[in-house]
Amino acid sequence: MGETSTTDASTQGVYSKPGEAFERDTRYITTRVTRDGEEGYPVEAGRYRLVAARACPWANRAIIVRRLLGLEDALSMGLTGPTHDARSWTFDLDPGGVDPVLGIERLQEAFFRRDPDYPRGITVPAIVDVPSGAVATNDFAQMTLDLSTEWTAFHRDGAPDLLPAAHREEMDEVMTRVYTEVNNGVYRCGFAGSQESYDQAYDRLWTALDWLEERLTTRRFLVGETITEADVRLFTTLVRFDPVYHGHFKANRNLLREMPALWGYARDLFQTPGFGDTVDFAQIKEHYYVVHSDINPSGIVPAGPSLGSWLTAHHREELGGRPFGDGTAPDPVRDGERVPAEHTPLR
Amino acid sequence: MGETSTTDASTQGVYSKPGEAFERDTRYITTRVTRDGEEGYPVEAGRYRLVAARACPWANRAIIVRRLLGLEDALSMGLTGPTHDARSWTFDLDPGGVDPVLGIERLQEAFFRRDPDYPRGITVPAIVDVPSGAVATNDFAQMTLDLSTEWTAFHRDGAPDLLPAAHREEMDEVMTRVYTEVNNGVYRCGFAGSQESYDQAYDRLWTALDWLEERLTTRRFLVGETITEADVRLFTTLVRFDPVYHGHFKANRNLLREMPALWGYARDLFQTPGFGDTVDFAQIKEHYYVVHSDINPSGIVPAGPSLGSWLTAHHREELGGRPFGDGTAPDPVRDGERVPAEHTPLR
Repeated sequence: MGETSTTDASTQGVYSKPGEAFERDTRYITTRVTRDGEEGYPVEAGRYRLVAARACPWANRAIIVRRLLGLEDALSMGLTGPTHDARSWTFDLDPGGVDPVLGIERLQEAFFRRDPDYPRGITVPAIVDVPSGAVATNDFAQMTLDLSTEWTAFHRDGAPDLLPAAHREEMDEVMTRVYTEVNNGVYRCGFAGSQESYDQAYDRLWTALDWLEERLTTRRFLVGETITEADVRLFTTLVRFDPVYHGHFKANRNLLREMPALWGYARDLFQTPGFGDTVDFAQIKEHYYVVHSDINPSGIVPAGPSLGSWLTAHHREELGGRPFGDGTAPDPVRDGERVPAEHTPLR
Repeated sequence: MGETSTTDASTQGVYSKPGEAFERDTRYITTRVTRDGEEGYPVEAGRYRLVAARACPWANRAIIVRRLLGLEDALSMGLTGPTHDARSWTFDLDPGGVDPVLGIERLQEAFFRRDPDYPRGITVPAIVDVPSGAVATNDFAQMTLDLSTEWTAFHRDGAPDLLPAAHREEMDEVMTRVYTEVNNGVYRCGFAGSQESYDQAYDRLWTALDWLEERLTTRRFLVGETITEADVRLFTTLVRFDPVYHGHFKANRNLLREMPALWGYARDLFQTPGFGDTVDFAQIKEHYYVVHSDINPSGIVPAGPSLGSWLTAHHREELGGRPFGDGTAPDPVRDGERVPAEHTPLR
């Protein structure tokens, strides 16, 4: 999740603790939005709003899954700007700086509607219950699983099965390792508070990336023959690797684009409707380089890397596979949800 | 030059000025050590000591030229450690932290012997007059030219002509552009005090690197058919590019190793006696990432990039050329001047 501190302004921009390894605070609002509504939040078209930031890899997952499953009409989406202050992500991209559906300036307000004393980070993605204005959940890992399993009544025709039962056990194994070693592993490098914790984080990260490189040399997708949730989760880290993690987080053994299988895999997904069309490279770079002022005090955002190569041929079709299985690709991104052309390489 | 501030400790580690573009202070002690001694410092075997830091690109030039010309016996060399404090480069690699010939702990002492009120940066390379203990010159650009032209009596048999008269005019043009746009251009990116000055610096740098990539696609060396001073000057920046400038200085359009001609050229030189055997990657990385605490407050030194590829085949021989012209390659590095094996990829 894109996390912000809710403590005082003196800690703004402080993400690493000197002498300490990075540990992610994984305590979320774990209420689930379910078909039966047994936790108080029943699935219902038009009732909820997904609040996300294109910059954030954890929110990017939800943006992709919502689009792959065709949930745009059932679950509206509000987008915060790429940066946030010590208190909250803000709706600074919207006219007047106010989310047009929730009527709030700061996502923090929706957390306080849920719990006036909410003590932890204000994170995206969050699903907000529009009638009450309160956050239903910000549990990013469960959220996308529930979009697949609880929101089926509102899936589009041809929506892919992102959690195929036949592969679920293998998926869980792969997703666990990808989460601890890669999704969170890059942060462990970047927010290391000592040389020793950084060195350990670096070794763990590259051990995992070498494993993935080998795995993806003979497989088009991570598990099975189709795109699954596991691919969504790996993709959002890979797409940020060369623009941010390589330099800003010192994950610099090599670039993603120097690893043939991972780079081909990442481009294959990027060029698949629902993936690359959710990616805003300009917002991604601005987020990391501006928000983490303890790592980049100048706030200067690098101009590189060149991004045109994301659109080059990947030849991954030769490995077989059926990206959407028995389903179909989603339609083009609808009006109002398109990434600005100048923020991303577009075909 | 590897520069340090001689002002108070509060400015230690501050290299960029908010809102301002980077401008290098190029006021040096410009006295020359010459054959005729007309500036008070005649060339004489055993009289002077070259003080350098392997970390510093400007000092690396002098280390390379001294070795290519075989001046080891005539001009001894003292090496400082890779980092320095607000006052000076220090001889912390030597037993007791004292240079065994000059008997000083800090290079600053030799500057003060020359001028008790010396007001500017304590820089390497410096040539110190051993009898007086005073810096004769720290004018890095003139220094290597003088090693070629004034120290000829002490050149080894087979020393190459690094300043061939027939190409001197073209060399000066190329070296000027390489200095302003590349050698200093990477610093202009890294020490930019505003997004605007960074963006301009980035564009200038890549315009120059694209020019060099094109030039070196059909030429083995920068000017003429042999290695010249122009190659020495470009090499010391290129060898630092992927380990430091790409990430730390945000010169990140692409890696050096993604530019076929420049990467082949850099490896060709690296693998030539006198070049790669002077390079200490560990000291280079430690210098930049530790000293520039305004850019890298954590002081954590990246573990990457992998360096083994510096030794891969470059095939630049196919472009012709005679690296040492009518001369020969230098002998292996002598005892006491070798870079530790664990600091560099070695054959």
